[in-house]
Amino acid sequence: MTTRFDFTLQATDGAARTGIIDTPRGQIRTPAFMPVGTAATVKAMLPDSVAATGADILLGNTYHLMLRPGAERVARMGGLHRFMNWQKPILTDSGGFQVMSLAGLRKLTEEGVTFSSHVDGSKHFLSPETSMQIQKLLGSDIVMCFDECPALPATEEAVAASMRLSMRWAQRSRDAFGDRPGHALFGIMQGGVTRELREESAEALQAIGFDGYAVGGLAVGEGQEAMFGVLDYAPGFLPVDRPRYLMGVGKPDDIVGAVQRGIDMMDCVLPSRSGRTGQAWTPRGQVNIKNARHQDDPRPLDEDCTCPCCRGYSRAYLHHVFRAKEMISGMLLTWHNLHYYQQLMAGLRDAIAAGRLDAFVAEFHARRAEGDIEPV
Amino acid sequence: MTTRFDFTLQATDGAARTGIIDTPRGQIRTPAFMPVGTAATVKAMLPDSVAATGADILLGNTYHLMLRPGAERVARMGGLHRFMNWQKPILTDSGGFQVMSLAGLRKLTEEGVTFSSHVDGSKHFLSPETSMQIQKLLGSDIVMCFDECPALPATEEAVAASMRLSMRWAQRSRDAFGDRPGHALFGIMQGGVTRELREESAEALQAIGFDGYAVGGLAVGEGQEAMFGVLDYAPGFLPVDRPRYLMGVGKPDDIVGAVQRGIDMMDCVLPSRSGRTGQAWTPRGQVNIKNARHQDDPRPLDEDCTCPCCRGYSRAYLHHVFRAKEMISGMLLTWHNLHYYQQLMAGLRDAIAAGRLDAFVAEFHARRAEGDIEPV
Repeated sequence: MTTRFDFTLQATDGAARTGIIDTPRGQIRTPAFMPVGTAATVKAMLPDSVAATGADILLGNTYHLMLRPGAERVARMGGLHRFMNWQKPILTDSGGFQVMSLAGLRKLTEEGVTFSSHVDGSKHFLSPETSMQIQKLLGSDIVMCFDECPALPATEEAVAASMRLSMRWAQRSRDAFGDRPGHALFGIMQGGVTRELREESAEALQAIGFDGYAVGGLAVGEGQEAMFGVLDYAPGFLPVDRPRYLMGVGKPDDIVGAVQRGIDMMDCVLPSRSGRTGQAWTPRGQVNIKNARHQDDPRPLDEDCTCPCCRGYSRAYLHHVFRAKEMISGMLLTWHNLHYYQQLMAGLRDAIAAGRLDAFVAEFHARRAEGDIEPV
Repeated sequence: MTTRFDFTLQATDGAARTGIIDTPRGQIRTPAFMPVGTAATVKAMLPDSVAATGADILLGNTYHLMLRPGAERVARMGGLHRFMNWQKPILTDSGGFQVMSLAGLRKLTEEGVTFSSHVDGSKHFLSPETSMQIQKLLGSDIVMCFDECPALPATEEAVAASMRLSMRWAQRSRDAFGDRPGHALFGIMQGGVTRELREESAEALQAIGFDGYAVGGLAVGEGQEAMFGVLDYAPGFLPVDRPRYLMGVGKPDDIVGAVQRGIDMMDCVLPSRSGRTGQAWTPRGQVNIKNARHQDDPRPLDEDCTCPCCRGYSRAYLHHVFRAKEMISGMLLTWHNLHYYQQLMAGLRDAIAAGRLDAFVAEFHARRAEGDIEPV
């Protein structure tokens, strides 16, 4: 196994790419979907089950972990991998996005962000330097720069000022990260939906130099069309030989469109959150298991799916346990959804490698258009 | 594999017994602990995980299943085993106990019990005949007679009248059950804490004839001393060559005492319910994982335990996920508790087979007396 972080591009198909990220904790096949393990657990799943879905890496949230159980405590317990019993790679976000969306009483300055915890109201400070320190204590394999991003819509002036602050913070993140062999630091491109700002941001990041580059500031309410509009050009501003990570995306069709446009990594709470609210994702679109039409349906969610939920349980059962508020409902639907997402990623990787991505995407949309089959 | 229900006594040690119950769905090693799968799921567990703890059989609740999803629906889905994806034996209770403790607006007559559902207020009727029909629709391997039992303390007259009603219902249950090869019907001894009534009940049941005999009407608030008082004589009123089932018991020391007194089967929600409220059972007694003393403790719940919870997770992690209200908390603690219970049963079986039950029980109590070890 390698002792350093590396990315090998294996094939391209149009703008889409497939490759391998090597880390000391294992390989990540790209395009990769990262399940979210916010509070040191992918909700409703055991780590072995997450791995069984095909996930090569998961995401931890710095903001949540610094507040509870605390980064120093995780470090004393041997780091996040050991603490949560997940030995494969972990990417941690910087806390920047979540402090702006979740914390109370935020105060943003050039230095960083002062805020109060949503858990107990206690005061905290996050900056490029403290975020790097916390992510180091957690022991994450891929560390994200501390950045800031305004909710869209915002004026171009506000987006530009925010992006330039994030670029100054990117330099401070790089300086604070130091030299940590085997660990990667990713820069985060900002600039909203303005091409010139995206280009300026990409150039600023490359002048600093990072192990990978994220496209930030999307999936914040701008809609799929605007997001794809940015992805039509933004990945092209980034170096070909480094992984490109689209943060917080998304629905299956968002993922397919992002991969078509040259994205290598994504994360989203959607498959796990949906699983806990009775929503299942299948090749035929979304299935709402609480709908009464499922109550006598002996079929699985997806006849072709090989996950434990579809191999072992009828829609009638899933409907029953959801209605009865049994934990197994969230456990089985989350497993199914994560399995479906990983199957989708595997299909995308294979299609890109075989140079038949267009056909794969056409089939993907055709099956979704058929919709979920009603019981006879 | 056998096509019929049978019980083979393999060894005794004092009043304690170990043996094998054969069923078409597999063997049950006795003394056996049955996890409770009230609503077609052992809460917080997948069936494969329940089997991995060593459970040979689980219990389903007729009252809950008849109300939701409904016995006819379960039958249409291929029976309870297929519905809940558990292929080993299932015992169902008769609904009698739970209708008296959970349902609203109960009306008890010689014929049966009319009641309203706690789920939606709908009206239902349970009698020996309907209970047998519902348990047949569920497809359970071990069916329990429909009975009635007063909460203790009660007057001896009330206990006697209730017991005699249950004996008339036992005859009606036997008649309604009919001839179902491979399926067993168990009678339920009543009589409270009165020796003469217990003896009368046991004789009435044996005159009817059953595949096994339960000791009912205990674990209803009488306390361990009174329960053991009854168990000092009641199992002796039952035939040696049939399994004896103590319903709704219990804590680990209840189980040990019951096995010492000749009980072969038990069930209880305690290990799974405790798991969801942050209580773990270990050889050293109970551990309350929400206690702050665990927050920096790198040790597992039990250093000697081989369950996935103890192999993979520190007390610090378990404390964290309990405080963060993460589902993995209930999943891991329930797994641990069920594993501990099954390990205890295996230890009891081995000790009885080896004729060293007294030494095993002495060691059991000695370790509990040591208590949970505080962190250094």
